Formats: sequence, C-alpha cells, structure tokens
Amino acid sequence: MKKTVAIVGVGLIGGSLGQALRRSGRYRVLGIARRAETLREAKRFRAIDEGSVQLADVSKADIVVIATPVAIIEPTLARLAPYLAKRAIVTDVGSVKGEVMRGAARARLPKGVTFVGSHPIAGSHRTGVAAAKPDLFDGAICVLVGPPSQALRVIGRMWKTAGAKTVRMSAETHDAALAVTSHLPHVIAHALVHTVAGRREHNQLKRLMAGSFRDTTRVASSDPVQWAQIFKANLPAVQRAVRAFAIELKRLEQQLSRPTLRAHLTRSQRFRKPLFANA
Amino acid sequence: MKKTVAIVGVGLIGGSLGQALRRSGRYRVLGIARRAETLREAKRFRAIDEGSVQLADVSKADIVVIATPVAIIEPTLARLAPYLAKRAIVTDVGSVKGEVMRGAARARLPKGVTFVGSHPIAGSHRTGVAAAKPDLFDGAICVLVGPPSQALRVIGRMWKTAGAKTVRMSAETHDAALAVTSHLPHVIAHALVHTVAGRREHNQLKRLMAGSFRDTTRVASSDPVQWAQIFKANLPAVQRAVRAFAIELKRLEQQLSRPTLRAHLTRSQRFRKPLFANA
Repeated sequence: MKKTVAIVGVGLIGGSLGQALRRSGRYRVLGIARRAETLREAKRFRAIDEGSVQLADVSKADIVVIATPVAIIEPTLARLAPYLAKRAIVTDVGSVKGEVMRGAARARLPKGVTFVGSHPIAGSHRTGVAAAKPDLFDGAICVLVGPPSQALRVIGRMWKTAGAKTVRMSAETHDAALAVTSHLPHVIAHALVHTVAGRREHNQLKRLMAGSFRDTTRVASSDPVQWAQIFKANLPAVQRAVRAFAIELKRLEQQLSRPTLRAHLTRSQRFRKPLFANA
Repeated sequence: MKKTVAIVGVGLIGGSLGQALRRSGRYRVLGIARRAETLREAKRFRAIDEGSVQLADVSKADIVVIATPVAIIEPTLARLAPYLAKRAIVTDVGSVKGEVMRGAARARLPKGVTFVGSHPIAGSHRTGVAAAKPDLFDGAICVLVGPPSQALRVIGRMWKTAGAKTVRMSAETHDAALAVTSHLPHVIAHALVHTVAGRREHNQLKRLMAGSFRDTTRVASSDPVQWAQIFKANLPAVQRAVRAFAIELKRLEQQLSRPTLRAHLTRSQRFRKPLFANA
C-alpha cells in the first residue's frame, strides 16, 4: 500500500518533494497549508494529491514533512503533535539542524512517534510552489540527522525516491559545514551589495555592473525573512565562518601586492574546479 | 568602402568582436596572432576574414584593436607602433584603463595616430576563440576613455556596430568603479574558495556544497594569470574596494545578532533587484 506523506508548507521545497514523490507512484501526498489558495496552486502544479487547511489532518499520514521556514518548525511541531498517528515519523527540511533537533526534543512528541532531521541541499533564490520542480533533488545530497533506526531508513528511502543521495551526520557537523558552504556565501553576497549601495556614486556603479558582480551576489535575492532566521538559528557557526573568511580576505589583500599573487589565485582556481562539474 | 580592423589577439573578446563586426558586413577583419594555429581556429569560428602572424601587417588597418591580456597591451603597442598606417586609430579592450592610458602615452605612437581606451564590460570565465560569440556585446556597456575626437567617434561606432552601448569617462572613474563592480567580486570569490581549501575537514565540506557557494565563487574559475595582472594594474583602487567591503562584512557580522538583521538584509535584497533583470 502507498504510504501517505503529509507535507506541511507547500512552497519550493515542499512542492518539489510532493511532485517527485507523486511521480514515483509510491506515495500519496497530502498538502497542508494555512490558505486554501496555496493548496489550489499546489494542486495545479501537481505537487499534492489532496489538500487540507486543518493541521489535524496530519493524523492520516505515515510520514509528516514540515517544509516551513526554519523559525516555524518548532511551533508547528508543537501544534501538530496531538494529532499525529501512533507510529508516525516526522521530519523537516530546514537548513539548520542543531536548533531544529533541540526544538523537536522540546516539542515532546507522543510516544511511538519519531523525529528525524532532514536537510536536502537544493534550492533556489525563488520561493513558492510555482518555482517547484520534480527534479529539484536529483543528485542532491540530503543530510539526515538522528540515531540509526527504522524511522531514519524510512525517511532516507523517501528522499532517495525523490532523487537525492542521503548521508547521516550529527547536527553539529552539519551546521558547521553548512555555515561555510551555504550560510557564509549568503552573508558575503549581502555585504557585497551593501558595499555598492552605501556609496554616494552608486548610480554610476549600477551602470558599470559586471557579470562577476551579478554571480557573486545572486543569492542576496533570496528571501531576507527566511535567511535572517537561518543566520540566527546557526549564529555561532555562522560567526565563526565569517571570521575565517575575513582572515582569508585579509590574506588575499596582502597577496595583491606580492609576486606570489598568481600562485595564490591558481590554488583557489584549481581547488574549485572539481567541485562543480558544469559551472 | 569597408574599414579594415586588425584584431591583435583573437581570444574570447577579440574573437567575439571579429564575429560581430564581420556579421555587420561593414568591416573587414584582419586577425593577428603569434601562432598560425590560433588564426586557423579564429577563421574556423568565423572571427576573422584573414590572418597574419606578422605584427607589421597592422599597416593594412584603419583601426587596430589590441585584445591581449592587460599586461601585454603596452609592450604590444610599442612593438606595433612603427608599422601603423598614417591616420590609424588604436584601441584596446583592457579591464583597467589608467595603466593602459599611461602605457599608451609611454609608447610614443607616431604623429597622426590616436589611441582611445576601450573596455567592453562583457566576458566569461571561459577564454579562447572557441568561447567567442557574435552577440557577446549585445546590450553591454563599452567604456571609452580619451578626449572627445573624431577617433573616439570612430571607435564608438565600431562598438555600437558590435552591439554595445558606449559611455565616455575618465580612466580614474572607470578604474574606481570597476574595482568595486568587477575586480572585488573576483577577490571575494578566491577568498571564499580559500576559506574551504584551508580547512582540515575540506573533504567533508566538498560533499556539502550548496548552490550559493557555486554561484558566489563562479568567477574564481577565471584565468589566474590574467586576473593577477588586472589586480596589479589597478592595485590602489582594488585595495580600497577590498577595505570598503571588509567594513560592510564587519557591519553585517554585527547585525547577525541584532533584531535589525532582517531590515539590513531586506535593504540589500531590494537594492540588487533592479540591477539584473533576469538573474
């Protein structure tokens, strides 16, 4: 029999997961959202089989995926806890794991219910189900957090069905790594835009924008509300990442006037090459 | 009668210019390169009508475009000066203008010959004529440097034919602006890659790379030799830009733990929005 997955919050990530799971034919997808309009849109984009504005309807699900912004995961968990089925497995999609795992512990889920942390590393600066696509997770890594268990295997199978490769690690390892590989680039992008915005001659600068500025600041277009939440939820690790980067920036600034500059740039160029096959 | 444009150095920029000018039917394009193989390739990619390995053949051209890396512009100018036609107009495509304009003055071009600085703000992290495309300059800004003159108008017409919009400004204004809008993003991209490369756990980080890291570091894939030259040729302006950015980074770091973080991120998100229509 098909497992029923309830997706709470049908935006870019929740919507893409719904599309991928429905496409597999192995899951029934129940969308849960506050507004009926969101559910109609999710249906139109083939992200859900059925929709409900009642959180209580998570009772129909074997798996519950909380696909809301990071700051709302804990309150959502607390609100839906009373309605969960006896052996339900709950997971999330948050970019920060320590704060989410602590929130899940605080939420006192009913006995028999298991929480597994998930972070599919995929996304876009776009938001909403209109930006969803069933292949968003194809080849992406999905980090799983929690002790080895049947529940963890069930969640892992779901993400694999959606196209992701799964890897289990501690919340701390995840958060320290993502602070560098994801949160830091967002901080940098915003700081670079502010470097132009804060100048008196910014109208002149705007005309002379290069492709390098466009690429380097692209993620500053992401939703500021969600990113403020992510930075706060992972604050110490993000601060450490920013400081490590500031040291590298200083080092490169010193290299600018030295004969070793070329070798320094060559090292980073070569290190980056194998990381991203096509870009 | 068609004007003859000699393009010295038929790589990404020189090749794309050649393709665009040939497509217009209004220019004859003579490619000049050290290696016959480069010229054969340029011909295959429809970037030139004719090729020569003799720098002396610039004598056949009304316009000479030096499309070499920045550091080679001045020596190239000095070497071709004796062969220039009586009223030839010479220009370049360098990303730095102060150093190039001073180099042109030092090169003591023959009387009647005019040098105009050009910088078409277009490109790619790829290099070579194989990456050239005739629409590379479509809608791009081309900065022109030099006093208003007939020669400047001739060069402006050439870039407009290639699809660019031209704007005249001083070398100082150009270099200060591009230090922020182009050179700084390259510095940042390299520093960010070094932030990962310098860590003991970098194999772990490599597996957890996000799209934001990919975009923010994309230009670290650019040719390190050319970029070392550009940074050195515009050193004081690049250093000022890096320092201005370091201040904004510090400011954002302080914002991370404040309730005003969201407003700070919203300002940069909104400032960026109209800069790049489709990205």
